[in-house]
Amino acid sequence: MGGGVLARGSPDVEGNSMPMEEDAPPTLPAGFRYAGVVSGLKPSGRHDLSLIVGEGPLTVAGVYTQNQVVAAPVVLCRQRTPAETLRAVVINSGNANACTGQRGREDAQAMCREVAAAIGCEPEQVLVMSTGIIGHPLPMEKIAAGIAAASQQLDNTPAAFASAADGILTTDRARKVATRRLQIDGKTYHLAGMAKGAGMIAPNMATMLAAIMTDAPLNMSDVQHLLRRAADVSFNRVSVDGHTSTNDTLLLLSSGQPAPSLIGNGLDTFAAELRSLCIELAKQLPADGEGAQHVLQLVVRGAASEADAELIARTVAASPLVKTAITGGDPNWGRIVSAAGYAGPTISPEKTSLRIMGTTTFQDGGPVAFQAAELSQRMREADFVDVELVVGEGSGTARFWASDLTVDYVRFNAEYTT
Amino acid sequence: MGGGVLARGSPDVEGNSMPMEEDAPPTLPAGFRYAGVVSGLKPSGRHDLSLIVGEGPLTVAGVYTQNQVVAAPVVLCRQRTPAETLRAVVINSGNANACTGQRGREDAQAMCREVAAAIGCEPEQVLVMSTGIIGHPLPMEKIAAGIAAASQQLDNTPAAFASAADGILTTDRARKVATRRLQIDGKTYHLAGMAKGAGMIAPNMATMLAAIMTDAPLNMSDVQHLLRRAADVSFNRVSVDGHTSTNDTLLLLSSGQPAPSLIGNGLDTFAAELRSLCIELAKQLPADGEGAQHVLQLVVRGAASEADAELIARTVAASPLVKTAITGGDPNWGRIVSAAGYAGPTISPEKTSLRIMGTTTFQDGGPVAFQAAELSQRMREADFVDVELVVGEGSGTARFWASDLTVDYVRFNAEYTT
Repeated sequence: MGGGVLARGSPDVEGNSMPMEEDAPPTLPAGFRYAGVVSGLKPSGRHDLSLIVGEGPLTVAGVYTQNQVVAAPVVLCRQRTPAETLRAVVINSGNANACTGQRGREDAQAMCREVAAAIGCEPEQVLVMSTGIIGHPLPMEKIAAGIAAASQQLDNTPAAFASAADGILTTDRARKVATRRLQIDGKTYHLAGMAKGAGMIAPNMATMLAAIMTDAPLNMSDVQHLLRRAADVSFNRVSVDGHTSTNDTLLLLSSGQPAPSLIGNGLDTFAAELRSLCIELAKQLPADGEGAQHVLQLVVRGAASEADAELIARTVAASPLVKTAITGGDPNWGRIVSAAGYAGPTISPEKTSLRIMGTTTFQDGGPVAFQAAELSQRMREADFVDVELVVGEGSGTARFWASDLTVDYVRFNAEYTT
Repeated sequence: MGGGVLARGSPDVEGNSMPMEEDAPPTLPAGFRYAGVVSGLKPSGRHDLSLIVGEGPLTVAGVYTQNQVVAAPVVLCRQRTPAETLRAVVINSGNANACTGQRGREDAQAMCREVAAAIGCEPEQVLVMSTGIIGHPLPMEKIAAGIAAASQQLDNTPAAFASAADGILTTDRARKVATRRLQIDGKTYHLAGMAKGAGMIAPNMATMLAAIMTDAPLNMSDVQHLLRRAADVSFNRVSVDGHTSTNDTLLLLSSGQPAPSLIGNGLDTFAAELRSLCIELAKQLPADGEGAQHVLQLVVRGAASEADAELIARTVAASPLVKTAITGGDPNWGRIVSAAGYAGPTISPEKTSLRIMGTTTFQDGGPVAFQAAELSQRMREADFVDVELVVGEGSGTARFWASDLTVDYVRFNAEYTT
């Protein structure tokens, strides 16, 4: 993005700098080791296979794509989560293992067997994520060699974590990571997450993937509940092109140290930090969206419920006319208000107001005079274009982040040929 | 469009040729007169105000936008249809009279008074449609002068009909008309329709508008029912950008000659011709969509119901990844099948198959080998790219037409500034 959204704390894929300060106290959770290697799945020769391994049993929750057409690794993960005795996750990029039938299901299981043999656990204790081209069988020889190599490089250092974060990227221009350190009852816990995703399905690349590691002790039902709630206000509130992939997977892995599990206020504190981390990770997706120049940072207020606010926000953010207005720095309130009007939930047109970058452009159902040229200039210069839409007097509020729609997005996705 | 979709029977806005053959028997319905004039609402100086007047009372049905933010003329028309004693419709382009509050409602009523005075009827016997920029009050002096001028030029000739069809256009590149002649019980009836629409809301232009005139005698309940059914499989099955406007209006006007009203098989015959005419008109919208190079002509089969098939078709047609694949001539079955998977209705992934331009690319849940380069070439050369998606073994079928998503669409909508 022109203004450098990604420059802020999120180094380029090629970069060697870490988002965590090397001199600061370690921010990676205890109990995990990481590796990322080149196994030869990508023509670019970049990292394409990552391992995340628990030193002991991990409590794991998963949230998956809502698509009915699901890739083999999603089928496998769904069957194995939530759980409290898992040991590892293997992730490959470059090939999504989607629409690959029985062969694909067998390959996903074979990946688990390879990991189990390499680290010493049962195949059923391993999860798999894949992302990349659809409809092609995995090159299993390369995958097996990659797993063997990665298992030799497992480490708990920031560099190993960064390599693993690089190994899950596809069309992304930047590594996507976020960390948190929190104090609960005098103890220090950590959260570290990695994500990928630039188009929901890119030319032939698929998917949003993310894995979040923590050493905070969580029981199995809490881990699933917390992840679902955090996903609802983070990864489920961003879009590049609104195209839900066949492979979307979000995992939360707890090494559970030290036990016993968090409860009460401690659990609430953890939930708030998890939500904050998920939002930080999720916002990096539209910021790095294919061809994106700006992120529409939308908040809808005054809806009858949060679900209504979310649907209105999602509809506004999906409109090509709204997205191109953001691209062009056009304070076009008509496109935004009319999109709210067809979203579905009941709104109060005569109580509808709109602020763009803090400037009121529409108030109580009617246009308001504003300095269009000045506002347009500020929109063009912003990485995140703030839009606040009030649709009535209800209590429903939702935030949403979406990339704009650019000539580069169309070129990127139109000029590719199978 | 490159290959000239619009060249087929639909002359350019600037063209003087008529879509109806001058030597053929007249295809315009009896009982109507038309006019289209330049009143000065558009910077381009093109036709911008049209009158459609019945020589006697008209039976009229209307179908309107589902947007909750509705323009003043839609509010007025909704209150006055269906009806059987209307006399005229006045349509202006260049200004949508939307988001204009009380002033806008008074202006819409004033337009009816001007027409009533000019042709000699009550203001309540007149309907209004408007399309163009949002949020600006109508320049009523120009409108009044235009109505006065148009009322002096009313005629029942093809040239007058064509002028009226031109007066409702905004960003359209081509006049959009269609006609039918039908025999029922030895009598000859006629249908003639005009439409406009290139973006659901263009830079600041709004709306799909259409008016269909007939001399077939229809009672008030039939006319409303028939129009709704025809709209559901025509105007409700096309999209440019999926952005529902504040002004969408479709009218069916019957001069009811000769009475008595059609019934039974005759009514069925009329309904089929009306549906066919609506589809012919509706397909012209995405073909002339902003920046459009191809139309995706999609049929979904095997869904549990027609409603399911329609929702799947609408979702596939709305995906920017599918639209850009059509732009680029990319037979990317993964994008289409995965869009069906997140549309909502239950599908049978293992019974899902896809044909593009007659070539099977995906069969019973798995990819099929095909000549990608040859198929891509045929896609790029086609004006209408045929895609047939089977999602199971149900009886639900729906057709849908959508423009592709091009660099020109983004430029057109991003480079405009309020």
